[in-house]
Amino acid sequence: MTDALAPLAGPDIHRRLRGPVRIVGAGLLGASIGLALREQGVDVVLDDVSPAALALAVDYGAGRPPAAGDAPELVVVAVPPDVVATVVERELTAYPDAVVTDVASVKSGPLAALRAAGADVSRYIGSHPMAGRERSGPTAARADLFVGQPWVIAGHDDITYQRAAVVEDLALDLGATVVPMDPESHDLAVAYVSHTPQLVSTLMAARLRDAPDGSLGLAGGGVRDVTRIAASDPGLWVQIIGANATRIRPVLADLRDDLDRVLAALDDPHASGSPRTLAEAIAAGNRGVERLPGKHGTSKRFAQVVVLVDDTPGQIAALLTFIGEIGINLEDMRLEHSPGAQIGIVEVSVVPEQEQRLVERLEERGWRIAAAWA
Amino acid sequence: MTDALAPLAGPDIHRRLRGPVRIVGAGLLGASIGLALREQGVDVVLDDVSPAALALAVDYGAGRPPAAGDAPELVVVAVPPDVVATVVERELTAYPDAVVTDVASVKSGPLAALRAAGADVSRYIGSHPMAGRERSGPTAARADLFVGQPWVIAGHDDITYQRAAVVEDLALDLGATVVPMDPESHDLAVAYVSHTPQLVSTLMAARLRDAPDGSLGLAGGGVRDVTRIAASDPGLWVQIIGANATRIRPVLADLRDDLDRVLAALDDPHASGSPRTLAEAIAAGNRGVERLPGKHGTSKRFAQVVVLVDDTPGQIAALLTFIGEIGINLEDMRLEHSPGAQIGIVEVSVVPEQEQRLVERLEERGWRIAAAWA
Repeated sequence: MTDALAPLAGPDIHRRLRGPVRIVGAGLLGASIGLALREQGVDVVLDDVSPAALALAVDYGAGRPPAAGDAPELVVVAVPPDVVATVVERELTAYPDAVVTDVASVKSGPLAALRAAGADVSRYIGSHPMAGRERSGPTAARADLFVGQPWVIAGHDDITYQRAAVVEDLALDLGATVVPMDPESHDLAVAYVSHTPQLVSTLMAARLRDAPDGSLGLAGGGVRDVTRIAASDPGLWVQIIGANATRIRPVLADLRDDLDRVLAALDDPHASGSPRTLAEAIAAGNRGVERLPGKHGTSKRFAQVVVLVDDTPGQIAALLTFIGEIGINLEDMRLEHSPGAQIGIVEVSVVPEQEQRLVERLEERGWRIAAAWA
Repeated sequence: MTDALAPLAGPDIHRRLRGPVRIVGAGLLGASIGLALREQGVDVVLDDVSPAALALAVDYGAGRPPAAGDAPELVVVAVPPDVVATVVERELTAYPDAVVTDVASVKSGPLAALRAAGADVSRYIGSHPMAGRERSGPTAARADLFVGQPWVIAGHDDITYQRAAVVEDLALDLGATVVPMDPESHDLAVAYVSHTPQLVSTLMAARLRDAPDGSLGLAGGGVRDVTRIAASDPGLWVQIIGANATRIRPVLADLRDDLDRVLAALDDPHASGSPRTLAEAIAAGNRGVERLPGKHGTSKRFAQVVVLVDDTPGQIAALLTFIGEIGINLEDMRLEHSPGAQIGIVEVSVVPEQEQRLVERLEERGWRIAAAWA
């Protein structure tokens, strides 16, 4: 599998981990890292406070149980956020020759706690693979979970380049894209692009509990998109949000202030100033969403072409085959629901220069186009 | 095109509109209705306060300009929300034998205004096709904009079944699914499933303006989904939200109260009660999102299978072709971004009973599966 992935991950010129690698925590992330390293022949030592979880992950092939005399090159701490610092400190002590990293979603807290405890942070560097799934536990683990995803390496001044490179090697071995970012910048970034959106999606979804029964039949792609990530594990998210509360809170408080202005405008939407307040709020949203980079890390905007298809995989496949045959590269794609209907709507994104040709060729071939815009 | 669509729209046993149909407002909806009716041979009279917009829509084939002696069977008012009632009243007076409908996003206000003005509402019934696009104007019009979408018919006690049926005919002629719903229920429904999600997406997107530059590179599918509909037209949405403010406000106010509880918990996330507050908020979101019906109007949950593909339409097409060949029906599909990477992640939804077989067959064929869960 590694060889098959190499062309996708770019020229593979980094030093590969030799191992052994010790992984503490046999959940989704820990077991996925173990599976991927095992496929590359690395000796992986797994550990977990739960003997059952450990046995399961070992059965899955994610590594072997610890043995006396284990001398890991790298320790990966993949435990819940609230015990990361404690476990990292213990591992630094237990394996004085190892570099130790963790893979938790928040990075400043563990480093600060380790410094406060007098731990040897010259061998610790936190990291954060931007990968996860709605499912958790070792049975959800996949060796290719990290392929093509950003993996933040949260550098600090007390670790040498050589030692930090061991964690970069791990990310690269697993097919991820290394993103160096200091812990504070990382935590602020995820407050904006992960944790606050998570809470906002949750708050919107919670309101749907009160919607009259018949209402939900009118739900289209918009509300589905806004609330998709609200289907998340409360236990895990309480820890993540708790660990990054100081950075999420100001973002969410600013949002609340904006919300209060919108509510005031809704009190009397036709009063002088109210339409302007609403228009400014919506325009501010326009500008915010425009900041999100497009695919491949660019901020390029794509043209959209919306095609009607029968609701069968064969139809969608035929559409994509045709797009490929005429040499147009698909930048993104979305399948829209049509409640109650046996028809699908495929929204295809292409570079704007290719929109007109795509529309013409699709129409020549008899595809029904519902809309197209650049 | 009509014949081609007929099998998708189900048995076509309704009475077809004879026309003429008069459409007031040559924007996206008006011109799309005109195009669709013209394709079916119906005489369509277009009108618009803007001679330029009218001329453009006529050039597009959406209908003909008004002429002396026009005697429409049906008048469709497709003008901005704030002038709907005025225009409907004028049309009721001008065409005393016609049934008049409108297609605005809010339904109680126009009916109440017409009653207050003493208009003949025995010939008026509002409607709302749940279709639209990010683009507006006649150049965005498509004859098949409404195919497979819900079209709410907002009935009331002062119009006979026979007259209301003319508007049902319109919806059915255009391939939509008729959803009868009284005006109040409709307006409350769209407050929950359309207008409040729109504002919430807008408020989250507006916060991204303040995110440090490097942050956006960590953006994944979550924040993109939450903020997608924030890229909407401020002018139109100010009117829609203004017209439904009384129903949106309580929903948004409840959300603000929930938000304040979350903010209080974030002040001291490890205080007694805070983790519980956060966990309850996230669990409430879980329950809300579960209420959204799945595709085909059921509330069935689907199993997800996540497949890694090269970033080419040919790969995605090959995947869907294979899924079709092994007889598995695709319920939904999502293409995930991988910023900076040349790899795509396709998330396929199938009925849970088919998940295991799909995974087995995909793996046999060498597809790389990143995750699967029911």
